[in-house]
Amino acid sequence: MCVALAGRKKLCRYYMPFDPFGATHPMTTTAILGATGYTAVELIKILLRHPHAKITALTSREETRSVGAVHPSLAGRLEMPLERLTPQEIADRAECVFCCLPHTASANVVPELLEHGAKVIDLGADYRLNSAEIFETWYDAKHPDPARLGKVPYGLPELFRPQIAGAGLVANPGCYPTSIILPLVPLLQSNWTEPTDIIVDSKSGVSGAGRALKLTTLYPECNESIAAYGIGTHRHTPEIEQVLSTVSEQSVKIIFTPHLVPMDRGILSVIYAQPKKTASSGELLSALREFYQNEPFVHVVEHLPATKDVSGTNFVHMTVRVSGGRVILLCVIDNLMKGASGAAVQNFNLMFGYPETTALL
Amino acid sequence: MCVALAGRKKLCRYYMPFDPFGATHPMTTTAILGATGYTAVELIKILLRHPHAKITALTSREETRSVGAVHPSLAGRLEMPLERLTPQEIADRAECVFCCLPHTASANVVPELLEHGAKVIDLGADYRLNSAEIFETWYDAKHPDPARLGKVPYGLPELFRPQIAGAGLVANPGCYPTSIILPLVPLLQSNWTEPTDIIVDSKSGVSGAGRALKLTTLYPECNESIAAYGIGTHRHTPEIEQVLSTVSEQSVKIIFTPHLVPMDRGILSVIYAQPKKTASSGELLSALREFYQNEPFVHVVEHLPATKDVSGTNFVHMTVRVSGGRVILLCVIDNLMKGASGAAVQNFNLMFGYPETTALL
Amino acid sequence: MCVALAGRKKLCRYYMPFDPFGATHPMTTTAILGATGYTAVELIKILLRHPHAKITALTSREETRSVGAVHPSLAGRLEMPLERLTPQEIADRAECVFCCLPHTASANVVPELLEHGAKVIDLGADYRLNSAEIFETWYDAKHPDPARLGKVPYGLPELFRPQIAGAGLVANPGCYPTSIILPLVPLLQSNWTEPTDIIVDSKSGVSGAGRALKLTTLYPECNESIAAYGIGTHRHTPEIEQVLSTVSEQSVKIIFTPHLVPMDRGILSVIYAQPKKTASSGELLSALREFYQNEPFVHVVEHLPATKDVSGTNFVHMTVRVSGGRVILLCVIDNLMKGASGAAVQNFNLMFGYPETTALL
Amino acid sequence: MCVALAGRKKLCRYYMPFDPFGATHPMTTTAILGATGYTAVELIKILLRHPHAKITALTSREETRSVGAVHPSLAGRLEMPLERLTPQEIADRAECVFCCLPHTASANVVPELLEHGAKVIDLGADYRLNSAEIFETWYDAKHPDPARLGKVPYGLPELFRPQIAGAGLVANPGCYPTSIILPLVPLLQSNWTEPTDIIVDSKSGVSGAGRALKLTTLYPECNESIAAYGIGTHRHTPEIEQVLSTVSEQSVKIIFTPHLVPMDRGILSVIYAQPKKTASSGELLSALREFYQNEPFVHVVEHLPATKDVSGTNFVHMTVRVSGGRVILLCVIDNLMKGASGAAVQNFNLMFGYPETTALL
Repeated sequence: MCVALAGRKKLCRYYMPFDPFGATHPMTTTAILGATGYTAVELIKILLRHPHAKITALTSREETRSVGAVHPSLAGRLEMPLERLTPQEIADRAECVFCCLPHTASANVVPELLEHGAKVIDLGADYRLNSAEIFETWYDAKHPDPARLGKVPYGLPELFRPQIAGAGLVANPGCYPTSIILPLVPLLQSNWTEPTDIIVDSKSGVSGAGRALKLTTLYPECNESIAAYGIGTHRHTPEIEQVLSTVSEQSVKIIFTPHLVPMDRGILSVIYAQPKKTASSGELLSALREFYQNEPFVHVVEHLPATKDVSGTNFVHMTVRVSGGRVILLCVIDNLMKGASGAAVQNFNLMFGYPETTALL
Repeated sequence: MCVALAGRKKLCRYYMPFDPFGATHPMTTTAILGATGYTAVELIKILLRHPHAKITALTSREETRSVGAVHPSLAGRLEMPLERLTPQEIADRAECVFCCLPHTASANVVPELLEHGAKVIDLGADYRLNSAEIFETWYDAKHPDPARLGKVPYGLPELFRPQIAGAGLVANPGCYPTSIILPLVPLLQSNWTEPTDIIVDSKSGVSGAGRALKLTTLYPECNESIAAYGIGTHRHTPEIEQVLSTVSEQSVKIIFTPHLVPMDRGILSVIYAQPKKTASSGELLSALREFYQNEPFVHVVEHLPATKDVSGTNFVHMTVRVSGGRVILLCVIDNLMKGASGAAVQNFNLMFGYPETTALL
Repeated sequence: MCVALAGRKKLCRYYMPFDPFGATHPMTTTAILGATGYTAVELIKILLRHPHAKITALTSREETRSVGAVHPSLAGRLEMPLERLTPQEIADRAECVFCCLPHTASANVVPELLEHGAKVIDLGADYRLNSAEIFETWYDAKHPDPARLGKVPYGLPELFRPQIAGAGLVANPGCYPTSIILPLVPLLQSNWTEPTDIIVDSKSGVSGAGRALKLTTLYPECNESIAAYGIGTHRHTPEIEQVLSTVSEQSVKIIFTPHLVPMDRGILSVIYAQPKKTASSGELLSALREFYQNEPFVHVVEHLPATKDVSGTNFVHMTVRVSGGRVILLCVIDNLMKGASGAAVQNFNLMFGYPETTALL
Repeated sequence: MCVALAGRKKLCRYYMPFDPFGATHPMTTTAILGATGYTAVELIKILLRHPHAKITALTSREETRSVGAVHPSLAGRLEMPLERLTPQEIADRAECVFCCLPHTASANVVPELLEHGAKVIDLGADYRLNSAEIFETWYDAKHPDPARLGKVPYGLPELFRPQIAGAGLVANPGCYPTSIILPLVPLLQSNWTEPTDIIVDSKSGVSGAGRALKLTTLYPECNESIAAYGIGTHRHTPEIEQVLSTVSEQSVKIIFTPHLVPMDRGILSVIYAQPKKTASSGELLSALREFYQNEPFVHVVEHLPATKDVSGTNFVHMTVRVSGGRVILLCVIDNLMKGASGAAVQNFNLMFGYPETTALL
């Protein structure tokens, strides 16, 4: 929508002579901290389509070039410098701040942002865990804002919609956790499956590893190849176990094997759970369908879903099979959309009172 | 936008309690003929986002399953059968008909569609050429509707906006032609470059070859490989030469080498033209910039553009270099968007009076 | 080696004036049945490098063109027609026959080939299972040669070397089975792991699906996407369970989820087994190392292996982790080499008395 | 061959009880300088297959780990540390030294290596150009060994076989140059085409950009994308023009546009030359065929070649078309094989008197 295209005056004047929303059309100013990475550029593209969002600040610790120079896909669509700004300066410009920062970097600025009246959606890991101790064990760093832990809603609207709607700070979920928590919750809550010996074999596109230069994500290293990594050590493990335990009110444990797949985007999680009672594929499909019947972004399907089916979208496709005495759940998302920036805008819509699907269909 | 989601009642009721456009919000009914291919599914996705379009019919000669079964990416987003319908039935249901049909199939139904009052956007080749003879030479088939040839506007709004806006039938351009015509026209028109000995070396993603089963587009055949094809015989050649000749009012000839590149989508055309007068890269960049200064989808850039920069968008990125006595133009588009379905919706917007960029930003 | 290059007279005369192996250098004639597919072309390339193999016949049911026309990668390297030959004609020309045929097609010709004195290596599934009943259940077809089932050695030299060396007919293993059986056998045999609730999550490159035209392996369908398929129904399941049960002398059951990964070749199998006694990663690594210490193609590594590490080779890389109460085995092979044609030549070397690694290093 | 597997004693003892080449089997010791990159690992793999080569030293400026740790594909195949060695130490260990070093690094050590009696094959650019001035213009660095320039044979055996055979130092060609020089030489030499206005549009796989960490070759940047780079500035330009000019005895000029293609390996060069006299595709095909009739690695084909046809091999496939008044040459190679390490071993074979195709078929 034209209104989001700061500086594209000619276009607005010429091609869209009137604002269909009228003069009372609400608009929220937004800032993105850490605007050089893949989640940030995805977020910018969604916000440029959003009729109620206006990007007013982009920050980077190192880049000072225009965002269009850093992300050529934005050339001509958004000309805005990357700046180094204080929390106060950011809060002065933006009602909503999206943090796309490395761990501990968010928690270092969030308190001040909130103090100055901004609402914050943190796409990083800093506010996902309830315990500073667990954070420090897994992230190998002291938490800068431990007092807030345990009070920040986890940004999965399908599970925490009311809490998100009223929040000033939301912890946007990790990409793997979204693809694992959503299919498991209905079956754990209804006691279809056991809370332990849950084996999760997840496969992610390479954008999930970020835009930092690493040998493992150099094209000729990871192209035409698949490998597991981080068995037993991936930082999403405690996040998944915490949310599953909270929601199903029991101690849930998973065995988690992530993989890097030679594709840009997408996550497929295949989850092998122990049934707690006899169940058919059909019964479990029905349980999933009932649970998600009113959700605009979750589709329970009968076929085995492919990551491509949801590529570039905020949708979640999931299905379930019973085979060999195991319940097998399969779930696909786009790691940059429902796994990061799409979910962030879904939370933004809830927090600011816009229809939840705005800019996401 | 919710209004476009036919049948998603629950979603509308639940998440979007009011239509921001109000009761007088205009809506155009649309049909897609040949809904099983890649351009069709891309078109459906754009129309689902379009606040003024409603899909009311989808046809296929062979498929009768739901469109969500044929295209799993539409699962839960559009549940509508693929039908076999007569032109009259189609025109009864849709004010605008998009034809995604093989050559001659469009021209077999278009006359009746028009007669019954529908407007038509043909994404195929049937109405692009002005001469039935040339059509028959290149397409090896008799043209079913020769009388209309030469009177149908070519659907490149950047060159033919007024004609398109008033038309009942528009010939949507081929994917390669868009990436070749747009950068060349400004330089040919202003006599910067010669109309002959134009060498065009184009590279396309595999979706350009369509969804029909062919050994050449089987994954293990074309993955990790690049090859040229159709040298001197590609059917887009006469289309490119005709439009360039018409617009620059001289006989233009090209040498055209298309390639298949191991990627889903995107076209890069590199064009080597003979300069007609001494020119610097800077002068030619300025000429391109001036020509496209008011175009919402065309961005003249300084860097060498990559197909990824415009992937999934309706944008065109182009630049120019002078090197070794040649003018070298480089242009990237997404073959399914600006090269097909995005352009079709741009034409739809013009034909039905909506802002030209609607659903395309 | 020059001697294998039938018809490349000029090359031999000109560039390799003498045969380093001398006049007594042994040579085995070989035929390949079903020479149009991916395993066949891989096999041809290995045999062209083999100093003791000479290709003397190639068959196809439908193709009659030169093999260099069917497989452009062989252009100039092997000019030989694809022929339709009787078993007798084949056996007259070749001492060793490699069958790259669909199921039941091999078992229809193998009896006659053996009768006429040829040795046979069947790369298909016909002689892998011990029971005609199980074959008919999984392959939905009557077995044409049931009497031989149970007497044909399974072509995994690492487990059945003596039997293969003396055999006239060998059943070359399936690609998935090799990547699953090899890492599991040492732990099952030594009672480190339980024989049931073994979860196998395997990922394969697209060449594993063969060269037949199918929508699922069309480039734009499977590129940039990962999906599971055939849960509970994949035909390699009974083969894996049979071999594991035989070798470890107990009834072994697996839950098997194969996936298609957007890459040409390679299989990664991740196997989650229940430990039978307390074990550390180190102890299990040692057990694997000891088991395979004399194997030229099996390397037990400490890092998590990637399919690329063994791409284009006959090597197997495997490792093991203990995590969350599960033993996790990871194994990579190249599905066309150790998973098919490389293994076939390894068997060929054993059957004809050549050093086992000939043409495979 | 077993003899090349230093340290694999068990394997040799067990699987290959005798050396088929006998006691008098010649063996050349080899060192690889700069063993961490993609050309080095490819070279190592070829040498491991070579019956007359033994790797005795591997160097790196920074790595000290085992080569199997740096290149996991060598795990279990070659266990040898990467060392920092003086030229004298290298020459003491190796009769032939392969330099896989950045520009100027080779020319800094080559004089001493030669002095100490080693023969050298330089895979870098230092000895390809005849003029120190031109080197300094294009490589922006002073040449450390200018006196040798102009006296070092260019390592394309198809053009300079006798010179290479007698040389102590050979300049291995660049990857693009091989794919451009080989098809052009026959037509330039026989005056079929003009020496100027030669447009070369080349496409390379990403391994051509090396193993250094760069944003442009990060997987999510270059995957699913094609772009040109280095127009008018690519360092292979003077090398191509020099060799073409020398061989055809006239001043040859090219316009060179290289591209990065989303694939690991392979180069396709499409060359648009001006005909000097009327010629048909058939006549030009014959000219190419005649020129290369005795070459073991060059195949003139009729179809349009794909990079995949020669992937992983030392072969060159080329063809020619006449279209639109232009002669269009198409040539494919594997950039790491015939474009680098394969060619290096071809030169090694010539320099040390082994059959030229040894280890390369």
